[in-house]
Amino acid sequence: MLEELKNRVLEANLLLPARGLTTLTWGNASGIDRDSGLIVIKPSGLDFSAMGAEDMVVVDMEGKVAEGKWRPSSDLPTHIELYKAFPGIGGIVHTHSRWATSFAQAGLGIKAMGTTHGDYFHGEVPCTRPMYPEEIAGEYERETGRLIAETFKCIDPEAVPGVLVYSHGPFTWGASPEEALCNAVVLEEVAFMNYHSLSLAPEKGSMQQCLLDRHYFRKHGKDAYYGQRVPRG
Amino acid sequence: MLEELKNRVLEANLLLPARGLTTLTWGNASGIDRDSGLIVIKPSGLDFSAMGAEDMVVVDMEGKVAEGKWRPSSDLPTHIELYKAFPGIGGIVHTHSRWATSFAQAGLGIKAMGTTHGDYFHGEVPCTRPMYPEEIAGEYERETGRLIAETFKCIDPEAVPGVLVYSHGPFTWGASPEEALCNAVVLEEVAFMNYHSLSLAPEKGSMQQCLLDRHYFRKHGKDAYYGQRVPRG
Amino acid sequence: MLEELKNRVLEANLLLPARGLTTLTWGNASGIDRDSGLIVIKPSGLDFSAMGAEDMVVVDMEGKVAEGKWRPSSDLPTHIELYKAFPGIGGIVHTHSRWATSFAQAGLGIKAMGTTHGDYFHGEVPCTRPMYPEEIAGEYERETGRLIAETFKCIDPEAVPGVLVYSHGPFTWGASPEEALCNAVVLEEVAFMNYHSLSLAPEKGSMQQCLLDRHYFRKHGKDAYYGQRVPRG
Amino acid sequence: MLEELKNRVLEANLLLPARGLTTLTWGNASGIDRDSGLIVIKPSGLDFSAMGAEDMVVVDMEGKVAEGKWRPSSDLPTHIELYKAFPGIGGIVHTHSRWATSFAQAGLGIKAMGTTHGDYFHGEVPCTRPMYPEEIAGEYERETGRLIAETFKCIDPEAVPGVLVYSHGPFTWGASPEEALCNAVVLEEVAFMNYHSLSLAPEKGSMQQCLLDRHYFRKHGKDAYYGQRVPRG
Repeated sequence: MLEELKNRVLEANLLLPARGLTTLTWGNASGIDRDSGLIVIKPSGLDFSAMGAEDMVVVDMEGKVAEGKWRPSSDLPTHIELYKAFPGIGGIVHTHSRWATSFAQAGLGIKAMGTTHGDYFHGEVPCTRPMYPEEIAGEYERETGRLIAETFKCIDPEAVPGVLVYSHGPFTWGASPEEALCNAVVLEEVAFMNYHSLSLAPEKGSMQQCLLDRHYFRKHGKDAYYGQRVPRG
Repeated sequence: MLEELKNRVLEANLLLPARGLTTLTWGNASGIDRDSGLIVIKPSGLDFSAMGAEDMVVVDMEGKVAEGKWRPSSDLPTHIELYKAFPGIGGIVHTHSRWATSFAQAGLGIKAMGTTHGDYFHGEVPCTRPMYPEEIAGEYERETGRLIAETFKCIDPEAVPGVLVYSHGPFTWGASPEEALCNAVVLEEVAFMNYHSLSLAPEKGSMQQCLLDRHYFRKHGKDAYYGQRVPRG
Repeated sequence: MLEELKNRVLEANLLLPARGLTTLTWGNASGIDRDSGLIVIKPSGLDFSAMGAEDMVVVDMEGKVAEGKWRPSSDLPTHIELYKAFPGIGGIVHTHSRWATSFAQAGLGIKAMGTTHGDYFHGEVPCTRPMYPEEIAGEYERETGRLIAETFKCIDPEAVPGVLVYSHGPFTWGASPEEALCNAVVLEEVAFMNYHSLSLAPEKGSMQQCLLDRHYFRKHGKDAYYGQRVPRG
Repeated sequence: MLEELKNRVLEANLLLPARGLTTLTWGNASGIDRDSGLIVIKPSGLDFSAMGAEDMVVVDMEGKVAEGKWRPSSDLPTHIELYKAFPGIGGIVHTHSRWATSFAQAGLGIKAMGTTHGDYFHGEVPCTRPMYPEEIAGEYERETGRLIAETFKCIDPEAVPGVLVYSHGPFTWGASPEEALCNAVVLEEVAFMNYHSLSLAPEKGSMQQCLLDRHYFRKHGKDAYYGQRVPRG
């Protein structure tokens, strides 16, 4: 069932440690098949080095296991809420990557300070508010997803495909598991650079809006001219 | 004698440089066989790259060598004091890992600032007081162990399986040498993140207690639901 | 056409990820054949791991493709402006390397704080002014090249073979693609060291001019005595 | 001539990039044969990856080449001055390693802030004064050696086997090239840790003297009990 998606979700999971985004068994990637409404996700607490495509777990939008011998990631309910709230996305990645998590622990979003950021995120990657005690005590992982959706009430999740969960760490997403992973890599990189830019120039705010727009739309939308998508004239 | 434990202690020692926790010949891991009261520990000052299971040293609780061709780690008396003071633990790891040691040199503990911390340590990893001159001049390594035990007079060593020794570096422990090593890896990771979170938001204290509880008990105790320990319903 | 130069430009591009200067498909290196006025440059948005010499694109000084199956790097117009403005250079490298980009995002140049800097750059590596909205909205990549040339109105580009573009990142150059790459490596290294030196001693300015001169001219110009260029007496 | 020493000096040089202490062709290691008064040193500006033992250069105490096809390192006169001033040493290593050089550029020595430091350096690793213009304009490399000797007028170079040259970088030494290299590795490590400890606790000074003594003499001198030098009782 969904063998191709399983292979792609496996690959995205294996790239988490390969890209230096995760330690031990932390982090997870998932993908969704929008036709069937089925999600493929990493099993909970398994070693990355021992995982194959057959270990991926297939679940429906209520979290019921449709196929798989393992329990799904304990963060599954967060993924489900995001797939429900953001119908345009096809993959999600969660890590505790070091630099982005340092911002999450500080309760600070990652402002657009340079063109590296603008090439992938059209504006600040926000940090959520702290969770309320009743959210933490209740369906915690599901509430985490709802909190992210709340944070994006006035932000387009496709233009800003990532968030920092307060005291926790980053979630990123994209049209596919590959794109979600790519955004996790970029988020970690811009978190590194923001940290040091802010330390060098604490008064520095975001970059000029017109430069942010230029870089974002160089790579996204109908007028994009980066890469090989457009045939050369 | 204790061949299986020797292999596991060797493996934990070899992971110290592999995990980037140690340089040159620094650091050591040990394990205890509670039935016989015998401890297996790394020999003193040997190259990690040249060590085999047969180089591990077996000693009793008084530090007398029961088997082995090398002198045991000079930190052995610290390990012994910890095994005596914390009867629930089965393995100990000592490193001079860079980020945790930076906190130890600053005389600061590592507060629980995020869920990465809360998944492994149920509260601040404390830093000991400075040692008294007479402790340093006396049975120094043994006094180091006693100092750690003193630091945990009001802390459960199984809920907070690690400490920073003032001006020195971290010790971690666990039910097994593997768990002690895992806690050393996590401690280094949270030290990295705390450093940067504190620099971004110096006024930030610990995370919410209810979030710390939630994450810790998600992975520990009878209601744990992380990983594959609980069969899926 | 220009097979040797293609191989050298390929090699310089492959060293960008190998030297830790770039992530994903970011960054690009080019070289120029001054006799024919033809430039060899990396294609836009291609994976480094999949690139061969035959993927390099040959363009003329107007940006017209003379040979090659791919679209050239979207930063090509910047390279062209630099080759026009700095007739003594033979290669250009652009990256978003982490430390240099952190300075660019802070809007700060990299002062000559030590002999490592002085061995390669005879003075501060400047940061450009922010671009004007009309430059950004217009021929953006070409304006970037013009902005760099403007920044070097009173600086010798061969003595200071690099720049930080405000809110963007570094460009370096040299007599050849190899030298441009070498300068990119050194710039990242001195950015790292300046960051930490400034943090340790914020009041510290540039090094003594006479020490900078000594180191620079130890390696450059007719009295150089570093390396094997001069036969030993 | 001196084949064994050439091999050892080669090995120490090759470990400079392997240990992450150097970039490009920077840095150099040497060793001395005290009987013949001959020094073996790395050639100037050669790639580490292409060097064999036969490329090492043998020179006498006046800097005259006794054997070798290459010009010796341009830092040779510094090495010679150190071998003259410190008759107890047998090897010297010079690098521009990132963390130690950051302190050198800040004009700050590296205080003994923890036991890692105390295990190898019996006190602060000092930073020299800035050089005078006439020293820089004169026999610069030789004056660098004299400046280091001057810095150690009241410090035992065998107890503190390293220095930071102001605006430049570290030199370390030891009884052998291997020990000089080991001290370069440790210096970089303690520079890293001091940087972060100072940032966490700016008011922090050196560690307690009695703890420094304990650790230093645990590994050095007649009462040492670290490692396998002393037979176990």
